[in-house]
Amino acid sequence: MSSLLIKGGTIVTHEESFKADILCKDNKIVELGEISVLPKDVETIDATGKFIMPGGIDPHTHMQLPFMGTVAKDDFASGTVAALAGGTTTIIDFVIPSPQQSLLDAYHQWRDWAKKAHSNYTFHVAITWWDDTVAEEMNILVRDHGVNSFKHFMAYKNAIMATDDILVSSFTKCLELGAIPTVHAENGELVYHLQNKLMAEGMTGPEAHPLSRPSSVEGEAANRAISIANTLGAPIYLVHVSTEEAVDAIRYAKDHGQTVFGEVLAGHLTVDESVYQNPDWATAAAHVMSPPFRPKHHQDALWKGVQGGTLQTTATDHCAFCAEQKAMGKDNFTQIPNGTAGVEERMMVLWEKGVNEGKITMNEFVALTSTNTAKIFNMYPNKGCIRVGADADLVIWNPAATKTISSKTHHSKIEHSIFEGMEIHGVPETTICNGKLAWHDNVLMVESGDGKYIDRPAYAPFYESLRKRKELNQPKAVAR
Amino acid sequence: MSSLLIKGGTIVTHEESFKADILCKDNKIVELGEISVLPKDVETIDATGKFIMPGGIDPHTHMQLPFMGTVAKDDFASGTVAALAGGTTTIIDFVIPSPQQSLLDAYHQWRDWAKKAHSNYTFHVAITWWDDTVAEEMNILVRDHGVNSFKHFMAYKNAIMATDDILVSSFTKCLELGAIPTVHAENGELVYHLQNKLMAEGMTGPEAHPLSRPSSVEGEAANRAISIANTLGAPIYLVHVSTEEAVDAIRYAKDHGQTVFGEVLAGHLTVDESVYQNPDWATAAAHVMSPPFRPKHHQDALWKGVQGGTLQTTATDHCAFCAEQKAMGKDNFTQIPNGTAGVEERMMVLWEKGVNEGKITMNEFVALTSTNTAKIFNMYPNKGCIRVGADADLVIWNPAATKTISSKTHHSKIEHSIFEGMEIHGVPETTICNGKLAWHDNVLMVESGDGKYIDRPAYAPFYESLRKRKELNQPKAVAR
Amino acid sequence: MSSLLIKGGTIVTHEESFKADILCKDNKIVELGEISVLPKDVETIDATGKFIMPGGIDPHTHMQLPFMGTVAKDDFASGTVAALAGGTTTIIDFVIPSPQQSLLDAYHQWRDWAKKAHSNYTFHVAITWWDDTVAEEMNILVRDHGVNSFKHFMAYKNAIMATDDILVSSFTKCLELGAIPTVHAENGELVYHLQNKLMAEGMTGPEAHPLSRPSSVEGEAANRAISIANTLGAPIYLVHVSTEEAVDAIRYAKDHGQTVFGEVLAGHLTVDESVYQNPDWATAAAHVMSPPFRPKHHQDALWKGVQGGTLQTTATDHCAFCAEQKAMGKDNFTQIPNGTAGVEERMMVLWEKGVNEGKITMNEFVALTSTNTAKIFNMYPNKGCIRVGADADLVIWNPAATKTISSKTHHSKIEHSIFEGMEIHGVPETTICNGKLAWHDNVLMVESGDGKYIDRPAYAPFYESLRKRKELNQPKAVAR
Amino acid sequence: MSSLLIKGGTIVTHEESFKADILCKDNKIVELGEISVLPKDVETIDATGKFIMPGGIDPHTHMQLPFMGTVAKDDFASGTVAALAGGTTTIIDFVIPSPQQSLLDAYHQWRDWAKKAHSNYTFHVAITWWDDTVAEEMNILVRDHGVNSFKHFMAYKNAIMATDDILVSSFTKCLELGAIPTVHAENGELVYHLQNKLMAEGMTGPEAHPLSRPSSVEGEAANRAISIANTLGAPIYLVHVSTEEAVDAIRYAKDHGQTVFGEVLAGHLTVDESVYQNPDWATAAAHVMSPPFRPKHHQDALWKGVQGGTLQTTATDHCAFCAEQKAMGKDNFTQIPNGTAGVEERMMVLWEKGVNEGKITMNEFVALTSTNTAKIFNMYPNKGCIRVGADADLVIWNPAATKTISSKTHHSKIEHSIFEGMEIHGVPETTICNGKLAWHDNVLMVESGDGKYIDRPAYAPFYESLRKRKELNQPKAVAR
Ligand SMILES: [Zn+2]
Ligand SMILES: [Zn+2]
Ligand SMILES: [Zn+2]
Ligand SMILES: [Zn+2]
Ligand SMILES: [Zn+2]
Ligand SMILES: [Zn+2]
Ligand SMILES: [Zn+2]
Ligand SMILES: [Zn+2]
Repeated sequence: MSSLLIKGGTIVTHEESFKADILCKDNKIVELGEISVLPKDVETIDATGKFIMPGGIDPHTHMQLPFMGTVAKDDFASGTVAALAGGTTTIIDFVIPSPQQSLLDAYHQWRDWAKKAHSNYTFHVAITWWDDTVAEEMNILVRDHGVNSFKHFMAYKNAIMATDDILVSSFTKCLELGAIPTVHAENGELVYHLQNKLMAEGMTGPEAHPLSRPSSVEGEAANRAISIANTLGAPIYLVHVSTEEAVDAIRYAKDHGQTVFGEVLAGHLTVDESVYQNPDWATAAAHVMSPPFRPKHHQDALWKGVQGGTLQTTATDHCAFCAEQKAMGKDNFTQIPNGTAGVEERMMVLWEKGVNEGKITMNEFVALTSTNTAKIFNMYPNKGCIRVGADADLVIWNPAATKTISSKTHHSKIEHSIFEGMEIHGVPETTICNGKLAWHDNVLMVESGDGKYIDRPAYAPFYESLRKRKELNQPKAVAR
Repeated sequence: MSSLLIKGGTIVTHEESFKADILCKDNKIVELGEISVLPKDVETIDATGKFIMPGGIDPHTHMQLPFMGTVAKDDFASGTVAALAGGTTTIIDFVIPSPQQSLLDAYHQWRDWAKKAHSNYTFHVAITWWDDTVAEEMNILVRDHGVNSFKHFMAYKNAIMATDDILVSSFTKCLELGAIPTVHAENGELVYHLQNKLMAEGMTGPEAHPLSRPSSVEGEAANRAISIANTLGAPIYLVHVSTEEAVDAIRYAKDHGQTVFGEVLAGHLTVDESVYQNPDWATAAAHVMSPPFRPKHHQDALWKGVQGGTLQTTATDHCAFCAEQKAMGKDNFTQIPNGTAGVEERMMVLWEKGVNEGKITMNEFVALTSTNTAKIFNMYPNKGCIRVGADADLVIWNPAATKTISSKTHHSKIEHSIFEGMEIHGVPETTICNGKLAWHDNVLMVESGDGKYIDRPAYAPFYESLRKRKELNQPKAVAR
Repeated sequence: MSSLLIKGGTIVTHEESFKADILCKDNKIVELGEISVLPKDVETIDATGKFIMPGGIDPHTHMQLPFMGTVAKDDFASGTVAALAGGTTTIIDFVIPSPQQSLLDAYHQWRDWAKKAHSNYTFHVAITWWDDTVAEEMNILVRDHGVNSFKHFMAYKNAIMATDDILVSSFTKCLELGAIPTVHAENGELVYHLQNKLMAEGMTGPEAHPLSRPSSVEGEAANRAISIANTLGAPIYLVHVSTEEAVDAIRYAKDHGQTVFGEVLAGHLTVDESVYQNPDWATAAAHVMSPPFRPKHHQDALWKGVQGGTLQTTATDHCAFCAEQKAMGKDNFTQIPNGTAGVEERMMVLWEKGVNEGKITMNEFVALTSTNTAKIFNMYPNKGCIRVGADADLVIWNPAATKTISSKTHHSKIEHSIFEGMEIHGVPETTICNGKLAWHDNVLMVESGDGKYIDRPAYAPFYESLRKRKELNQPKAVAR
Repeated sequence: MSSLLIKGGTIVTHEESFKADILCKDNKIVELGEISVLPKDVETIDATGKFIMPGGIDPHTHMQLPFMGTVAKDDFASGTVAALAGGTTTIIDFVIPSPQQSLLDAYHQWRDWAKKAHSNYTFHVAITWWDDTVAEEMNILVRDHGVNSFKHFMAYKNAIMATDDILVSSFTKCLELGAIPTVHAENGELVYHLQNKLMAEGMTGPEAHPLSRPSSVEGEAANRAISIANTLGAPIYLVHVSTEEAVDAIRYAKDHGQTVFGEVLAGHLTVDESVYQNPDWATAAAHVMSPPFRPKHHQDALWKGVQGGTLQTTATDHCAFCAEQKAMGKDNFTQIPNGTAGVEERMMVLWEKGVNEGKITMNEFVALTSTNTAKIFNMYPNKGCIRVGADADLVIWNPAATKTISSKTHHSKIEHSIFEGMEIHGVPETTICNGKLAWHDNVLMVESGDGKYIDRPAYAPFYESLRKRKELNQPKAVAR
């Protein structure tokens, strides 16, 4: 295999910035610094005036998800093209077994679907039901299949909702296995009640969607998941935090010594709930996702959460449904497939609204788009890192280039972008995945199937103190 | 009926202190100030150097409660003697229907039991199950029976636990009726899990009780109840708040404009969890109640909650089980009947640890022991108040007298006091109930049955803004 | 003197609402309830369908204040007409001695100016410098002149600013006297620095005013004053709280058991900082006051502070400068006289934006506009209260009437209203002051000089626990 | 120069742990991993079963400080022996000019004193007065002398206290230079007032020391410094945070997007204020330092601050006074020289109470004892880091070894240890400084003068967003 040399750029990691050339070979970064002796067959990229950063990791996507009676448009092939086009080299998608379905069966089904991926990928596995076989399959997934995170939906009553007894059982098992439980935090009973109430009142349009899932519904569930984890001594990761209440709940827990992580979507950081008032039904419906876009003050709370360290990762919940699919809910907002795209735009949006507005430094940008996710899900320092020995997943960022986001030019299969028209100053020009040029000058350079599955071992470093505490907290009987 | 004159004392209300005589007749305060023209047949009490305050209201007692396979020792006769002996003239007890039992049937059963009360009384009614008949009976209770509060147990799985769907339905109904939902906030699934885990580990003694219900279990449920109420636009009242987490949850809600009330027990303010380490099983077991006594820093949080206005009422959860009953759980802490006494000591404990330690003023003492409860449960200004026209329920407090609390001298039927040995500087010497001397110089002056049932109308004043908000928050469809 | 009967209305106090007639005689409320036997010479007002509330108390006005080289336009005559027209029957104005001026001299000067008042009035006295004679005159003011509150300006460097050493000395003296220190909380050094910096940058217009006093400047000073009071064991009252930071500082202190009070202006609750961007210089300048109007999210924080009990009183800082006076700062925003009007509109604004929007109940409205101020400054229950024996200062509110606020119809002498154009649903129609009709059907019924000076004794009820704590906290030496 | 090989150990950095050998040469780490080809002259250390971590950095020491009429006992020679013995390879000491003294003169004086250091060192420079020459000398120190941090004492009235005007001027200058202001946060006016008051009351012993500096005094100043920095857009670093109030102030600021850092002392984390009640005057006096040791609940708050990321660095404020020196305050606690030792024990104490108790992971231990300080004061990645190219400052930790801390065995010159008797499980056995064995098997291996001065450039990475914000926040005049 030939080598790849990136010359003249400034390397930006989660903690420093410095000028250096990078030599990649066989998947890996093999040299860093001023590189004078070159191997044969080397391909050279000039990165003068540009930043080289770890390839983005999107910890939350749903490619070709079967959901609400249809299947998300972007499959692992098209979705990962969009990822690479935006500088993201790894996605963490979700295996979502149906209730009563074997976790392993579902896992293999998703693995099969993902074979056509262009970028790297790995999977969280959802716990949608419970019995002893589920516990046993969690064991096997951790031991044999590189899974170290399990997802729980606290909403979607009568479908995949995990009630408290399931949360308690599954979090306990996660702790036993050194895995991390994650939650979609919305109180399913309240959503169910509000959906019925709104429909009964004749509120059938997409503007009813946010009313059926107000911020208190997320705040409640966030707090509940955190408290259950706290009680059991387990870590916890909250996906798509979209509200001030949930930020406050995470902060409270962290400030009391708990191990809690929070993820925020590029969409929730920048789009607000006024979109549901759009007089065009299709436009309003295109924004239907859960949790919904929020009143503006939540955006401020999310940014503050990012700045103060309460939220550590950024994601997209990329789950693309086209207008035709959205139209399934024409007369009933609860039937509009929930989901929006974004895997391509995530890093650009965070750059424009974060770095360019002085909210975060470039180093923090790297931490938020790549490194922190790699650490939490135990892929660091192979991923999320630029050093000799790390995987050669990189993005070359041109701070001087500009671009306007549009569904006309994006690589998702759907015809709508929630970031339509946003001007970006500083764009990803070249993406290197597994040591090879994957995206360059607007051209896809890899093939379907070139993406690799990433094994993620249990017991990430944060587990050290959790284990110690468990040991110290053994109950002691009073001698009587 | 003869009149009663209290002469020479200082009246202390929830907002002021002033010298005045009080003339009572036919249940009511009929004159206030310097009283020179006296009716015939007047009995005079000299209150020189003493404080006259509204009779205490304990918003949380369980007389003769059938619970955990036995019945609480103090019935409405003995329990209300203890109340009067401690300056409390009204208790709010609980009607607790079994799952599937008619609310009205249960209500009438409790009314019947309460006929022998010496002090005044009224009832919260618990919602332990749900269907349309429950909703209809809530209607009737509010309309015809003077009930304006409904209780929900978030713990006690497989017994009377109200799951989220029940909370949502019942809170919605309460809002419709102008009633206030109240909750016992502990996550029942977690308690159940921890009880099983501890028993499996051989932790069978009373020291396992607090480990099965750690503070996070209460914090979670408090937050959940508050969030559900917030989502629906309903008010909410939390009984026996015992943890920093729950105080913080109430505070957070109040600081965001929500209508939330919190009650604290005299026991939780002053007793800590070290009691469960007592080498004597019976002593440890005597303290088993839920929520349990807590590590000391929670006491500090509770007092701060009282001082800052986060907690408004003080109660006891008086539910007295004797040593023999407690022994039912000799080999299994989960079988120890939960409950402690306190209806007699509540006001003295709050005086000693609150007023005498400079934590609260005397006026705040009155608010916390009487007035606030009267307001929240819509008995004000008949109760909780000293003015012409108010009910003549009074306590005469001698700040110069002292007393040592002891089970040897208390009026509960059980042989243990959680306040044993506490020295009190300032004691209730005379209690006037319904315009008559009820307790005087350590002598009971009324008979069983003299206590009256108190009707409490719906729509307490705090409901005004809730109704306005509901009206303003009607959802509006987008015209398309 | 003839009597006044108010018939058929609904009385609304800070804690209840009920139908009753009111009979006033010789300054006082003499009867309440259904009044059948009438005195001779009684004048009757029909209040059917209307609310009768305690007359408003504005705890913060500056009539005819000599300030920044000019004198506020509204003097005690015109300013108190505006007050009565808006339902306010008592103002608390400020005696502000020049540095080195005798407090008593200044006090008598202000008393003299106030002789022409139409409404009742009383005075805070400012501490603008310090030596032993100041301490001694504070003594005399408290003992002989009914002053129980002293004001401290933490801004206005090189003029009346009280530095930390003065705050420490004065708060200590207040504690000794049973008086309450109050503060205008802005860090004077920062304001001075920013004013100079902005002027140096050519920022001379009124839009520089808010930039010279950002919210952090207030937050800092609020926290400092509170911490100093806390360290000394003194109570503290913050005037014109206008920022989230200051609300948070008060809340933090209250939640830690401290005795702190906060005041908010009708203007800060409803006007935001965009006014300083007005292209018309005069309009922008008309809004120059300190603290300035704020970005909108602060309004939300203030309302939440009102709802949660963090802020207890509402005021106006009425200090009226006309356009000609404002023009003094044409080329230098620091020379624009600071001040706006509002004493007439305060209650209407709070009704419209508070009660009508479901943020507060009518009872809370009364507490916020009258009762709480009366309690904190120890005028209760003569003021702020409707009961037999209380002063007959009342306002009759017509919830069905409407009105549009305008400088064309207001009674201040200046030509601008910061509330211009606000529509009010529910207006004060009749104001009764000292038992007499003072304002009725848009007609002034009293004469200049009819207003009375109010003596305010030291040691308000909240002092009880402060004194107890002081006693308990005496330091004890270790025997060695 | 010969090379040094550390074989067989586990490298622990602030973010990962892995097995690798380390080869050091000429000050630097030159190879990492499995090292087979060895240079000549290599000295080999066997680290099997041990952890190799970056050498500790103590950001707060005062060697041979002239203070309160005497000079601290440990000079740069003895103090840095203690440092090396405890695994610390770099100290940041303080240049403290007298008021009116040239900063450069003072700087050179301290540089001269420090020539005898055994470990590396660098200096914060204190701003104790202000005029244009101070500003100019700050310029020179940053440009020519590797100083990037300036210290401000908010206490010590009539000596080195920086009043608000100085803080404003100096922070402004720091921002201009890319330096970071740091503060000793205690309100000097309150301390002065309380000292005088206590002495007047006859409280002359060391037990009066904490009473003269209660936690509110620190909370106030912390908040003030943070607010001033916030207003100006400057970063801020708080030294020796010892109270819940200060932790809360930092947290509040961070949660609002501000750039704030907090340092905590090993002493404040583990010693409480009961030491001042010691009946032995000398023992009590030995603990006199400012801020003083605190009631226990502050320790809990500090640990929570460490765990949640509010506090980033650990230090000692090592400033050693012997019994004879302490005796200067025999009759007046304000004359007891303030200071305690600890530079040797810091890392052991944090290991025992942090890592061993499950409060922090080993990686967090490294961050807290070394890496974070290196980053904040811009010495990273030369310091605080183990990688090829980094400085060879290392400590080899034996987790299996134990030790009891005692003044009998410590290397400070004074006869007292505030950690006396603490048992440590896991101790630093070998310290490597500048690539050489500096401390090994309880033997000092370097000579006085072997320590190097560390230049610290301005504009640490956190400055990136501060500069961007400053640029975006330029005020804009309204065109009129
Ligand atoms: Zn989701
Ligand atoms: Zn999702
Ligand atoms: Zn209960
Ligand atoms: Zn109960
Ligand atoms: Zn002011
Ligand atoms: Zn003012
Ligand atoms: Zn210091
Ligand atoms: Zn120091």
